[in-house]
Amino acid sequence: MGKIIKDLNWRYATKYFDNTKKVSTKDLETLLEATRLSASSYGLQPYHIYVIEDEEIREKLKSASWNQSQITDASHLIVFTIKTSFGEELIDEYIENVIKTRAVEPQSIKGYSDFMKSKLMFLSAEEKNNWTTRQAYIALGNVLTVAAHLKIDTCPIEGIVSEKYDEILGLTQKKLSAVVALPIGYRSKKDDTQHLPKVRYSKEKLFTHL
Amino acid sequence: MGKIIKDLNWRYATKYFDNTKKVSTKDLETLLEATRLSASSYGLQPYHIYVIEDEEIREKLKSASWNQSQITDASHLIVFTIKTSFGEELIDEYIENVIKTRAVEPQSIKGYSDFMKSKLMFLSAEEKNNWTTRQAYIALGNVLTVAAHLKIDTCPIEGIVSEKYDEILGLTQKKLSAVVALPIGYRSKKDDTQHLPKVRYSKEKLFTHL
Repeated sequence: MGKIIKDLNWRYATKYFDNTKKVSTKDLETLLEATRLSASSYGLQPYHIYVIEDEEIREKLKSASWNQSQITDASHLIVFTIKTSFGEELIDEYIENVIKTRAVEPQSIKGYSDFMKSKLMFLSAEEKNNWTTRQAYIALGNVLTVAAHLKIDTCPIEGIVSEKYDEILGLTQKKLSAVVALPIGYRSKKDDTQHLPKVRYSKEKLFTHL
Repeated sequence: MGKIIKDLNWRYATKYFDNTKKVSTKDLETLLEATRLSASSYGLQPYHIYVIEDEEIREKLKSASWNQSQITDASHLIVFTIKTSFGEELIDEYIENVIKTRAVEPQSIKGYSDFMKSKLMFLSAEEKNNWTTRQAYIALGNVLTVAAHLKIDTCPIEGIVSEKYDEILGLTQKKLSAVVALPIGYRSKKDDTQHLPKVRYSKEKLFTHL
């Protein structure tokens, strides 16, 4: 079925990273560019992404992640944060970007701007957070696949204490909040789970064709 | 930066599909196998996926999707549905699969099973739905990337009336609920949006390096 399926079979949630191996600048640039190109609702990208190498910060974040060693042993730690309780500025900033990138007349996309605002501004704070988190998860799914394609190991970690991440990274005053962490790097030889067969629903159980 | 970045730049939310072009059986198989290999929390894959070619059903779903033409014009419609108000059976089924796939002794993973149950069984119905939806979105992000890699066009549609989808597909009695729809196929030449430059945050705006 080709390389991409081989890559996805090769991927697994890495339990132990080799802390002597670093992702190259070139591969990191590719991975981040892929992240930047992720799809999102209306193209709004309602998130901000931290790429953390600093050891001291990672040591603190580890204690806010049930002491999972991947946080500090991986080459880099990517932290997806969502824009909490966003206002009209999220759409205005996007519209400005459209005007600049596509050289369109502001008046010609006023209707689209109003449409987005009518859809998003009346959501509750909780609904907004659920929506922004889902957009971050599209990016996460994309990054996991592209990383595997580049033979970079990953381990998505939902088990983080968001409030502590927000405090350590100073996110609250920036109206951001951490939703998921992704150590990236290279698997350690001592990680036995890499040899285990993948557990997945059969296609008969996962799909219904109509 | 290589083919994968080219693929992601080529991707866009397709507004008009060419309704004369079908995704080949081989490519569809690859795309679904990639979907099946998506990462999910604990590997539980708490969703079920519909792959719909039937024209009559799609006509009905279109009316539950603000009449967006992609629903019927695309080659296939993929509908991600989540397992609503799941119980211990979700974990039990996974554990059975682990025992079978990895030939382990049931007793040796009892602790892991109990751990997952302690994490998931006490979530409220709403928290469960948010969690399952996030897992479906990881799969969505993966599929968007793999589709682009196969030069298959897509258009993720969050603007669906879930209740109507659930009724049309008979999901409620199966304890499923539709969360997002994904038409797949090939862009029509008449879709002018394919020529527009992509609007994205600059890397300076999207990332913070620490």
